[in-house]
Amino acid sequence: MADIINIENVPGGVTSAAGFMAGTAMAAIKKADERDVAVIYSSVPASAAGVFTLNIVKAAPVLLSMDRLARGKAQAVVVNSGNANACNGEQGMRDALAMAAEVAAVLHIPEEMVLVASTGVIGKKMPMHKVLPGVREAAGLVSPEGGSLAAQAIMTTDTFLKESAVRLELGGRTVTVGGMAKGSGMIHPNMATLLGFITTDAAISDVCLKRALSYAVDRSFNMITVDGDTSTNDMVVIMANGMAGNEMIKGDSEDFMTFREALARVCDELAVAIARDGEGATKLIMVEVRNAGTEGDARLAARAVAGSSLVKAAMFGLDANWGRVICAAGYSGAVFDPEKVDIFLGDVQVAKDGGSLEFSEELALEALKGSTVKIIIDFKSGPFTATAWGCDLSYDYVKINADYRT
Amino acid sequence: MADIINIENVPGGVTSAAGFMAGTAMAAIKKADERDVAVIYSSVPASAAGVFTLNIVKAAPVLLSMDRLARGKAQAVVVNSGNANACNGEQGMRDALAMAAEVAAVLHIPEEMVLVASTGVIGKKMPMHKVLPGVREAAGLVSPEGGSLAAQAIMTTDTFLKESAVRLELGGRTVTVGGMAKGSGMIHPNMATLLGFITTDAAISDVCLKRALSYAVDRSFNMITVDGDTSTNDMVVIMANGMAGNEMIKGDSEDFMTFREALARVCDELAVAIARDGEGATKLIMVEVRNAGTEGDARLAARAVAGSSLVKAAMFGLDANWGRVICAAGYSGAVFDPEKVDIFLGDVQVAKDGGSLEFSEELALEALKGSTVKIIIDFKSGPFTATAWGCDLSYDYVKINADYRT
Repeated sequence: MADIINIENVPGGVTSAAGFMAGTAMAAIKKADERDVAVIYSSVPASAAGVFTLNIVKAAPVLLSMDRLARGKAQAVVVNSGNANACNGEQGMRDALAMAAEVAAVLHIPEEMVLVASTGVIGKKMPMHKVLPGVREAAGLVSPEGGSLAAQAIMTTDTFLKESAVRLELGGRTVTVGGMAKGSGMIHPNMATLLGFITTDAAISDVCLKRALSYAVDRSFNMITVDGDTSTNDMVVIMANGMAGNEMIKGDSEDFMTFREALARVCDELAVAIARDGEGATKLIMVEVRNAGTEGDARLAARAVAGSSLVKAAMFGLDANWGRVICAAGYSGAVFDPEKVDIFLGDVQVAKDGGSLEFSEELALEALKGSTVKIIIDFKSGPFTATAWGCDLSYDYVKINADYRT
Repeated sequence: MADIINIENVPGGVTSAAGFMAGTAMAAIKKADERDVAVIYSSVPASAAGVFTLNIVKAAPVLLSMDRLARGKAQAVVVNSGNANACNGEQGMRDALAMAAEVAAVLHIPEEMVLVASTGVIGKKMPMHKVLPGVREAAGLVSPEGGSLAAQAIMTTDTFLKESAVRLELGGRTVTVGGMAKGSGMIHPNMATLLGFITTDAAISDVCLKRALSYAVDRSFNMITVDGDTSTNDMVVIMANGMAGNEMIKGDSEDFMTFREALARVCDELAVAIARDGEGATKLIMVEVRNAGTEGDARLAARAVAGSSLVKAAMFGLDANWGRVICAAGYSGAVFDPEKVDIFLGDVQVAKDGGSLEFSEELALEALKGSTVKIIIDFKSGPFTATAWGCDLSYDYVKINADYRT
């Protein structure tokens, strides 16, 4: 049973794969009694890859980690929440380097093997007198049981921690892929618009790892949207330490396809969790565009609908306003024939051939009342499908973001 | 004193220019006691031009008016609020044609000289048994005093009516340009994302009129954003009936430049009024990008900042969170050097060279408390400037849009 379906969810996250440990600390960067520093550590050097924000304003840790990942290797990641270390000029880079150096010193690994990530307020100097002791403590506390606390430490306005792990067989060996993520605002497609950290004990080259990560991120983190804002700080990185003992995964092999699907599953679960936890969200919105002429058209339309403030507000208000759905698809840039479009809310068809349809408002209301709302848009013009994830727009989104900094 | 500055604001709107009349009716498309039909009429045939939504899902009246304006002539416009007549298939087009035919019959003008515009809910059949009597009544009531009631009749969630008029001298003749607009949600750049109707008694060819309109719309209606949704219905049309008796305006003449500036002023005032009246808005946000390398970069950045949900929520919360400002500029697609950027809130500089700056939170709070907030972003890398307009994101935006349809 080595077929591609043989991927099994297991409890856990970033320390589920063999050889990975995590430690955390409360450094009072956020609040005095909250974890805000996490260190992830692989007991052996790992292949590593990352994807990074496309925002041209990039935080110092993003620039540092991009640079270090050019070599395709890493052994640890240090993350802080509460301060983004963005727009801090040269001091920002010095601070990011100091965080990495601290981890390297405690764990006795080369500085260049340490990646850095930060999340929080932009344009505030890092309180290094608090950060460095926190980093030292977290690095000193790494353990195979530290995964969930690490997932907690990277949260900002998140209301629940986000972990996922799967197990699969590759050539008779058991391989684990696990991860954690944070992010509930500033989430928008077209980049790793969040923090995501994935670990695996698979043996795989950094080149293959990068390809698999791009594939997985494109279908997961890049298909979620909370508010259309792409942050200065976001990244998804993966480390693969080979401790599962499988034969090195080669490009285009069956093992590669299996591994890629496993990674995609972990990324998908983390991404959907982020969409569900969108700031102030009361429900998750799944937008599926079916039968589009190209994959690009399907993706553009799905993301535009999931990201439309008017659609999001209608979902919050339990309003079966399909006109806003077709309107958002229409300005997405996707090419389709408006007079062919069918729209469903859950199982209830609400529009046919681009026009209205008698439907039961009661059944539609039922479909909208759940904690997950499915919007299906059928272009009836080709074989391509894409799914995007978002959340509704509520009073609480405004509340959370009106007084985040102060 | 024929110089370009000699443009004077005057009270009034769409019936201020010579020869223009308007009539309205309560047809119970919206509610029983609200005006929801307006007819604008020129006593002589006029040169005419329009700009239309870029949404590929276009309402029937948009398709009809685009088609009719290909000839560059019009003599009347009929507008209804309460129903968008979008996504209504062939019946939608039949209904739009019937509205125009009704106006033509009452006013004894050719059907093809009548343009049609609609705004309201998408995907609901037009209640023609109410619409046609309303159109007939409004057409029968046209008068030179009808401008303000017409501006009222086209409102949907607008909280105040939007009119503007200016007077100028062209070759010894007094020319008037006036207009009205509606729109407070679904407002986003890159198209006439609203309804706007401009009238003038200037003599100008339809070709020149189209050029002047594009110039004015690009700098006004296309620089406002409320929620990022570009509607299926929006259009700006202008009629010029020549009754001022000025010498026909030719392209690139001094008269053309003067007329263009007058038209731009009217469009600008209407656009800013729409941004201020953004659904649920408590304040107007002006974003000025200075010293950009290209005009395109300035425009992209200004619009992204004005449209950022996070910036808008911060303004609602009176939070001087300049990090969100530079972040939005960063993902806008504009090219600039993040380490050169200065940011001001009103007169208070809050960031310098892309980094933080000691500033008085009290003075910043003062700048944020007004009914208009100015955000100035200086790229320090070229001569180009652009201004975009938006509004804050409040609880009421969510409330208005959560139960618009039901």
